Amino acid sequence: MAAREAAISLWNSICEVCEIMYQFRNDYSFGAHPKVLEALAATNLEGNIGYGGDPYCDRAADRIRQLCGCPQAEVQFLIGGTQVNFTAIAALLRPWEGVICPATAHINGHEAGAVEATGHKLIPLPAGRDGKLTPAAVAAAVKEYDNPHLVRPGLVYISQATENGAVYTLAELEALSALCRENSLFLFVDGARLGAALTACGCDMSLADLARLTDAFTIGGTKNGALMGEALVIPDPALGRDFFRIKKQRGGVLAKGWLLGVQFEALLSGTLYFDLAAHANRMAGLLQQGLADLGLELYVPSATNQIFVSVEDSLLPALEKLAAWEVWCKEDETHTVVRFVTCFHTSEEDINGFLGELAKLL
Amino acid sequence: MAAREAAISLWNSICEVCEIMYQFRNDYSFGAHPKVLEALAATNLEGNIGYGGDPYCDRAADRIRQLCGCPQAEVQFLIGGTQVNFTAIAALLRPWEGVICPATAHINGHEAGAVEATGHKLIPLPAGRDGKLTPAAVAAAVKEYDNPHLVRPGLVYISQATENGAVYTLAELEALSALCRENSLFLFVDGARLGAALTACGCDMSLADLARLTDAFTIGGTKNGALMGEALVIPDPALGRDFFRIKKQRGGVLAKGWLLGVQFEALLSGTLYFDLAAHANRMAGLLQQGLADLGLELYVPSATNQIFVSVEDSLLPALEKLAAWEVWCKEDETHTVVRFVTCFHTSEEDINGFLGELAKLL
Amino acid sequence: MAAREAAISLWNSICEVCEIMYQFRNDYSFGAHPKVLEALAATNLEGNIGYGGDPYCDRAADRIRQLCGCPQAEVQFLIGGTQVNFTAIAALLRPWEGVICPATAHINGHEAGAVEATGHKLIPLPAGRDGKLTPAAVAAAVKEYDNPHLVRPGLVYISQATENGAVYTLAELEALSALCRENSLFLFVDGARLGAALTACGCDMSLADLARLTDAFTIGGTKNGALMGEALVIPDPALGRDFFRIKKQRGGVLAKGWLLGVQFEALLSGTLYFDLAAHANRMAGLLQQGLADLGLELYVPSATNQIFVSVEDSLLPALEKLAAWEVWCKEDETHTVVRFVTCFHTSEEDINGFLGELAKLL
Amino acid sequence: MAAREAAISLWNSICEVCEIMYQFRNDYSFGAHPKVLEALAATNLEGNIGYGGDPYCDRAADRIRQLCGCPQAEVQFLIGGTQVNFTAIAALLRPWEGVICPATAHINGHEAGAVEATGHKLIPLPAGRDGKLTPAAVAAAVKEYDNPHLVRPGLVYISQATENGAVYTLAELEALSALCRENSLFLFVDGARLGAALTACGCDMSLADLARLTDAFTIGGTKNGALMGEALVIPDPALGRDFFRIKKQRGGVLAKGWLLGVQFEALLSGTLYFDLAAHANRMAGLLQQGLADLGLELYVPSATNQIFVSVEDSLLPALEKLAAWEVWCKEDETHTVVRFVTCFHTSEEDINGFLGELAKLL
Repeated sequence: MAAREAAISLWNSICEVCEIMYQFRNDYSFGAHPKVLEALAATNLEGNIGYGGDPYCDRAADRIRQLCGCPQAEVQFLIGGTQVNFTAIAALLRPWEGVICPATAHINGHEAGAVEATGHKLIPLPAGRDGKLTPAAVAAAVKEYDNPHLVRPGLVYISQATENGAVYTLAELEALSALCRENSLFLFVDGARLGAALTACGCDMSLADLARLTDAFTIGGTKNGALMGEALVIPDPALGRDFFRIKKQRGGVLAKGWLLGVQFEALLSGTLYFDLAAHANRMAGLLQQGLADLGLELYVPSATNQIFVSVEDSLLPALEKLAAWEVWCKEDETHTVVRFVTCFHTSEEDINGFLGELAKLL
Repeated sequence: MAAREAAISLWNSICEVCEIMYQFRNDYSFGAHPKVLEALAATNLEGNIGYGGDPYCDRAADRIRQLCGCPQAEVQFLIGGTQVNFTAIAALLRPWEGVICPATAHINGHEAGAVEATGHKLIPLPAGRDGKLTPAAVAAAVKEYDNPHLVRPGLVYISQATENGAVYTLAELEALSALCRENSLFLFVDGARLGAALTACGCDMSLADLARLTDAFTIGGTKNGALMGEALVIPDPALGRDFFRIKKQRGGVLAKGWLLGVQFEALLSGTLYFDLAAHANRMAGLLQQGLADLGLELYVPSATNQIFVSVEDSLLPALEKLAAWEVWCKEDETHTVVRFVTCFHTSEEDINGFLGELAKLL
Repeated sequence: MAAREAAISLWNSICEVCEIMYQFRNDYSFGAHPKVLEALAATNLEGNIGYGGDPYCDRAADRIRQLCGCPQAEVQFLIGGTQVNFTAIAALLRPWEGVICPATAHINGHEAGAVEATGHKLIPLPAGRDGKLTPAAVAAAVKEYDNPHLVRPGLVYISQATENGAVYTLAELEALSALCRENSLFLFVDGARLGAALTACGCDMSLADLARLTDAFTIGGTKNGALMGEALVIPDPALGRDFFRIKKQRGGVLAKGWLLGVQFEALLSGTLYFDLAAHANRMAGLLQQGLADLGLELYVPSATNQIFVSVEDSLLPALEKLAAWEVWCKEDETHTVVRFVTCFHTSEEDINGFLGELAKLL
Repeated sequence: MAAREAAISLWNSICEVCEIMYQFRNDYSFGAHPKVLEALAATNLEGNIGYGGDPYCDRAADRIRQLCGCPQAEVQFLIGGTQVNFTAIAALLRPWEGVICPATAHINGHEAGAVEATGHKLIPLPAGRDGKLTPAAVAAAVKEYDNPHLVRPGLVYISQATENGAVYTLAELEALSALCRENSLFLFVDGARLGAALTACGCDMSLADLARLTDAFTIGGTKNGALMGEALVIPDPALGRDFFRIKKQRGGVLAKGWLLGVQFEALLSGTLYFDLAAHANRMAGLLQQGLADLGLELYVPSATNQIFVSVEDSLLPALEKLAAWEVWCKEDETHTVVRFVTCFHTSEEDINGFLGELAKLL
C-alpha cells in the first residue's frame, strides 16, 4: 500500500541520515566484533549439545577461572545484564534480605523493578557524581537496618565501571569488601562494562582481585564485542550450588547455549576482550579531551568509554542532527548533561570528524 | 599442561565420534539457517537503536500481523521459550489466578518451576499420549475450582504442536477457545514448534486462526532456523498494554534487539520459516515410516518433527553409539520410549544412513 | 428500614435453627475455650510490649521448648495455618526448590496457591485415603527430579493428623525423616491438628519426637481451643535465623502479639491443650462408632476428631437440616463422603442427640 | 525450679515497675476496649460459620458501606496493617507497576519489604516533616517514570493520619485524587489511624469523602480499640473482584473470621470507634500542650494521637524510667526526637501525672 511504501521510503531516508551521523548512543549499537561473528559462523552447523553443556562453554569457563586465578569458581553464562543481575541476586539472598546499592545503580533506575520483582527490596543510598558507593554510607545503612521490622541488608551491589563511567580503585574495593565480610553482606559487582574498567588508565585491579574480593561478579560481553552474553563468576562454588536451576527458572538458559561459549572463547582465549575495551577507552579519551578543548564542561571526568558533558539546551537540536547520543539528566534550567559512548567499532575518524563538525556549531 | 592437552585430545576424539553420529537429539542442536546467519552478518555493523526499537523488529512485527490477518495485534520478540511463557502468563494473570495445562506441558515438566516462580499455581490435568488437553477436562477443573479457597483458573496453556508431537485440529482449538471465553479464561498457545504444527500433514489451521481463537501465542524461532528468538502475538492490544515493561523486568529484552527482528524478517518475509518446518516434518515422516518398517513400535504417531518409538532396553547401548537422541520415558520393565527429532539441517542422507545402520543392529 | 428489619428477623430465625442444629462443620466454629478467654480478659488492659516481645510469648515459647525437650529451638507464634505454612516454607527454601506433598495436602487443595505465590512449585504425590505420604513415593520423586531443568525438591510437607484424619506412627515418621536427611530435604509437619494426633488412640509419638525428627512443625491453636494462633517450632536455631523478619514481611506479626502468648500459655502451661484434643477425639470416636452402628460405611477409619462416612445422596437434604457438616467428595454416582468434626465444645449430648435423630431418618 | 521462680519473681518486679510507668509507647499496648471484649465474650460459644461468612461480618460490612455512603463498596476484614497493605496493593497492581509513597511511609520503613516481597517496586518521594505527599512531587515522579525501562507508577500510597501525626485536608486529598485519576494511578489510603484523623480538630473529611476520592482505604481497628483487625474498603466493586482469594492466599483470612466482624460491629454500630479516637486525640492534645508549656520543642505539631518532641539526649535516661515511649529519630548531635502515643485507655490522670513528674525532671 501507498502508506507502507511511504513509510519505507521515509525509513530509507532516515537510514541515509543515520549513515552520516556519528554513533555515540551506546556501546550496544553494533553487532559482534568480526572475529566473534566469524567464530559463530564457523561453528554454526557443527551440532552441539544444548543448554550450555557444550565444550565451548566449558573452555570459556575454564579460561575465565584461569584469568581469575580461581580454579574452583562457578562460571555461568547468561544472555543479558538485567537478567544476570536479578538472577544472581535472587540466588544469593533469602526472602527477607535487601540490596544496598547506589541510587544511580542500573538495578535501581534502568531495570524496570527486576530485583523487586524477585521479592527483594532495594536500599538505594545517595552516591556522588561518580556513582560510587562509600563504605561509610554502607555502614550507616547497616546500622539503620539493624531492626527486625526492616529487611536485613544481605548484599551490596556496585558496578565496575559505574553508571557514570568511574572506576573503583583496588583500595576502594578492598574497603567495601572488608566491610561486607564483617557484616555478612555479599558483595556483587555488575561488570557490564568490566572490560572498560579493567583497561582504564589508572585501574589497579585485576580479575583475580575481583574473584578474591567479591562474592559474585559479571564479565560483560554485550557491551564489548559480543552479540549478547554476560559471564557470571561466583568464586565460592558453594554459593553457586544449583545455579543452573535458577538460571533456567528465570529464563537465562539459552537453548543453543554454545552461542555464548563460542563468543566468550573468541573474546577471552587471547586478549581480544581487553583490546576492544582499551580501544573504546582510547576513543573516549580523545573525545573527552576534544570536548574539553572546545570549551564544554565535563559533568564528571571519565576514564572509561562513557563521556558526560554539560551542554547548553540551545545546542541540543543541532547536536541531534550531528550524532546519536543520550540525554543523561538536566543540569540546571538551561543546561543538559549529555552522554557519549564509544565502543569497539568507534574509529579515530569518527572522533575527529565529530569534533570538527561540533567546532563549527560552537 | 599435559592434563589440558590430554583433555583436548580426548575432546577431539569425541568430536570425531560426533561427526559420524546421526544428530536427532533435538531441533536446537544447530545454529541458524544459513540465510538467517547471512542476514545477521549483513547487518552486523550497521548501527541500530537498541532494545527492539529498530526497523527490523518493526517490519518483522508488521509481517506477523499481516500473516495473522490481525493488524492491531501486539507483537513482541523475546529470546527463549521458558522466558516468553512465564512472562506472557505473568502479564496476563492476576496474582490469585492459576494456569490449567496438560500434565505433560513444557511449563510443568521442563521449565524449573518458572511459572510458579512468578507466583502462579499450575493446575496440571491428565493428558493422553498425544499431550492434548480436552474441553471436558478443562470444564471439570473450572467446576472444581469454583471455590474461593482455591486459585481461580485464569488461563489455559496448550502447545501446538504438543510436547508429544501431536497437532490440535482447528475444531479442537475452536472448542477449547469457546470454552475459555465462556469461562473468562485466557487461552495461551506455546508455539515453540508452531512451524512444525502448521506445516504438518493434515493441519487445517492458520496463523489467522490462532490470532482469532487465542489470547496470546508464540511463533518459535529457536527450533526452526533462528539462533534464538520467539515472537509473542497478543491479538487484543489492550491485553498487551505495557508488555515491554514486564519483558524488561523479567530479562526478556535484548540490548541488541534487532538481532531478533533481523532473524524473524529473514524467516518470515518469504516462506523460509514454513519451508524449513515442512522439511523437518518430511524428514521425520521418513524416519517414522522407516522405524515402523523395521518393526519398531510407535509410542504415539506423530505428524511433526518429533518421533517417539518404543525400544528394547538391550538395544539402547548400540543405539547410543549410532545417533544422538533422548530417552522420553520408560514404557515398561524392558522397554524405553526414545525420541528422535529432525530439523532444518536434517538430510535425507541422514535418515537413510541411520535407518540402514539401525537395520544392521536389529 | 423494613428491608433491614426483615433481614434481621430472618437472621434471628436462622439462629434459632442454628441452635437446634448439631455443629459438626469443623473445629473452628466456636471461639476460645473459656479458660483461654479468661486469660485474655485478665491481661486485656495490662499494657504490654507489642509484636510478641512480651513475657507471655517468652514463657509460652519456653514451655514449648521444654515440652519438646529441645531447649535451643526457635519458637514463633503466627496467626493462622495458611500463613504459617507458606511463611515457614518460604523461609526454609531457596528460590529454585520445590515442595513434595501428598496430593491431598492442605497447601495443595485449600490455601489458594499460597505456597506458589511465594514462588515455589508444589510436587503433589498420589496419597491413599489416609492422606499419608510414603517414603517410596518421596524417593521416586527425588529420583525423577534429579534433573537441572526441574526444581530441586527441597522440602517434604506432611500433616499430623492428615487431612483425612489419620495419624503417622513414630516408625513412619522416622522413615520419612531418615529419607529426607539422606536427600537434603527439609521435613515440615503441619500440626494444625497436632493435638488431635498426639492424643489419638495408638499414637506413639511425642512433641520431642517431632523436634528430633523434623526441621519445622506447627502446634495448632486455632483448631484446639484458641481464638487463633499457631506455634511454629524450628528445632535447629540456625534455620530459624531472622525468622521474625520474614514473619513481619508476610503479615504474620500481630501488633498485640501477646494475645498469642497468653493463649498458648493458657493452653500449654498445664495439660489443657491435650485435654481438649483428647476430649474432641473421644467425642469423634463415639460418633464414628455410632455411625457405623447405624450401618453407615466409613470412608476411612479415623482415630482423631474428623470422621468420614459415605452417605446416600438421597439422605443429604435431611442430614443438612439436622446438623452442620461438610461434603468431602463424591464417592460414586449415588453416594457422597461427608465429614463430621468434633472439638473442645462438642458434648456427649450432642453426639447422642444427633445419632438419635439420625437413627429416625435411616 | 529455682531458676524459673527467680525469673517469675524478676518479672513480677518488672511488672510493678511497669505499673508505675506511664504507657505512651504506642496505641497497641492494650488489648480491646471493654465493650469490644464483651462482644467477643458474648458470642464466644455461639457457633459460627468460618472465614468471615458469618452475619457479624455481613452486618459490620453493611454498616461501613452505610457510613461511607457507598452501598456497592467491597468491604473485607483482615487481621493486621502490614497484611492489608501488601495484599490490597498486590490485588490492585499489575506486575510491572510500582508504588509512589512518601519516603516516611509505613510500607517503606516499617514493614520489612512486604510490598517488594509481592514483586512491586516502591518509589519513595521526599516528604516534609508532616509526612504528606504533594501533588507536585507525584506529578514529577509520573513524568520521570514515563519510560518503558522503568516500572509504571500504578498506585499512590498515603496514610491518614500520616506516620508523623498530620492530617490531610479534604482539599489536599481532592488534589491528589484528581491527579491520580488523570494519570491512571490508584489512590490507596492506609487508615491504620483513620479514627484519629477523622476526629482530629480541623479535619474536614468524612468516610464518604474517602470512598469518593480513593480506590481503596482501610479503617484501622488494631490502634483504636480492637484486639486486631483492619477493614478494607474498595469503593468500586469491580476492583474488589476475587479479593477473598488473594486474602486467603496471603494469609489474611482468619478461620474464626467472625472475631473481626464482632469487633467492627461493636466499634461501628454506634459511635464507639469515633469516641475512642476522639478521646485519644484529646489526651494527646493535653500532652502536647503540656510538653510545650514545659519548654520542649515540638518536632512537628500534631492534631492526632502521636506527639513528637525534641529532647536533649541527657534527659533520655530519666525519661525512660518515667514512661514508655519511642525514639523517632536523631534531630542533631545532642537532641533526639521522641514520640508519645495515646490511646483509648489513656486517662487525664496519666497525662497530668506524667507532666508533673516530667516538670520535676526539667
